Amino acid sequence: MISVRDDWVLGFDADDTLWHNENIFEHTHQRYRALLARFHDAATVERTLFATEMRNLELYGYGVKGFTLSAIETAITLTAGRISAEEIQQLIALGKDMLAHPVELLDGVEETLTELGGRHQLLLITKGDLRDQERKLAKSRLAARFRQVEIVSEKDEATYRGIFRRHGIPPERFIMVGNSLKSDILPVLALGGVGVHVPYHLTWAAERVDEAPRAEGRFFRLGSMRELHSLVDEVTGRGR
Amino acid sequence: MISVRDDWVLGFDADDTLWHNENIFEHTHQRYRALLARFHDAATVERTLFATEMRNLELYGYGVKGFTLSAIETAITLTAGRISAEEIQQLIALGKDMLAHPVELLDGVEETLTELGGRHQLLLITKGDLRDQERKLAKSRLAARFRQVEIVSEKDEATYRGIFRRHGIPPERFIMVGNSLKSDILPVLALGGVGVHVPYHLTWAAERVDEAPRAEGRFFRLGSMRELHSLVDEVTGRGR
Repeated sequence: MISVRDDWVLGFDADDTLWHNENIFEHTHQRYRALLARFHDAATVERTLFATEMRNLELYGYGVKGFTLSAIETAITLTAGRISAEEIQQLIALGKDMLAHPVELLDGVEETLTELGGRHQLLLITKGDLRDQERKLAKSRLAARFRQVEIVSEKDEATYRGIFRRHGIPPERFIMVGNSLKSDILPVLALGGVGVHVPYHLTWAAERVDEAPRAEGRFFRLGSMRELHSLVDEVTGRGR
Repeated sequence: MISVRDDWVLGFDADDTLWHNENIFEHTHQRYRALLARFHDAATVERTLFATEMRNLELYGYGVKGFTLSAIETAITLTAGRISAEEIQQLIALGKDMLAHPVELLDGVEETLTELGGRHQLLLITKGDLRDQERKLAKSRLAARFRQVEIVSEKDEATYRGIFRRHGIPPERFIMVGNSLKSDILPVLALGGVGVHVPYHLTWAAERVDEAPRAEGRFFRLGSMRELHSLVDEVTGRGR
């Protein structure tokens, strides 16, 4: 239970909000397209891989292991079984490379968490593979900044409602910071919280939304984490 | 935070404690050995697969997706790349079958949880893949019986210590029920709690321990969940 008093609680997404992630996937996609280039053009490879991922999402959930399995499945289908076992071994190795990849923090993250952590309770709310997210958090050396870490399988309204209930957080005193409108912003706005969108330069197709959030005074978009501190001051000051 | 009052908290493992799981893996292993039978004898296949799993455990963690990736990797190695893409597709399908498998409760589980849930706070503590464990819990229709569900990446002393702290549970008022000495019993005994071992007829090699628990009056072994109710009465009555 987080003691909220008169205080605000700040939730942070992890991948592509605190540290780089989508660029690692993008690098893997490049190598994947190259591996299949003698069979299909890049657009066909990408379209088919994405379709496989979406079809498997309910079963696999998010994360690198499910991605790797979907990549193998797609490669076998797209090559009508002509891909070699050795090339499939390369796909497994690509997946392992992703899991073992170093964690690189985004610009301004450490200072921002230090400044805000002194005044507010910080929560980490991330979706994906349990072991992989724990490992990235450990590598980031940011774990101690957070009062609580929530690794969830989906970030929808039900998930945020559960987190608010578990930690006794009034939604109108909650600010969520993240790069995904779909997972970080829209569900929080729908529950009456504040959403701060800090876009990453790459967005996975499954996280893209057309809907522009409408929530007067509760939705903000920043160019970088460096701008978060003064925005939070403004938002939370307003509530006092 | 669980309100403990004078009450005891009961922790339950899930796989092979509340519902069948290892038998699904065993069935998959049989089909895996059959697939590779023209290359190697069963013992070699099993030994090599287990070695791959253990080598990948730190990176993949527990669960079906990591198992499937390790099974593909092992099959390619053991056949020196002669396994066909179509057979690898079969391995992916085997993994999906495991994820989609119905959940079958063990004998006596529902009645026991009903009886004990009326008097004690029940916690579910399970390790593995987040999405898969959530799905199995949903399929089991047991979720509402538990005050809290903890899906963790490892069940060691640090994990249980964290759970005790998060929920304000005094270890000496905690009883853990499970089929794995390594994951359910030994760490809880080490922290001063009570361990109730209810063995399943199959145990994955990675969960086997030689060590016989030594904890006078705090370690019990039962033949079935049906015996749990009266044991808990005895143990908790003792503490009053």
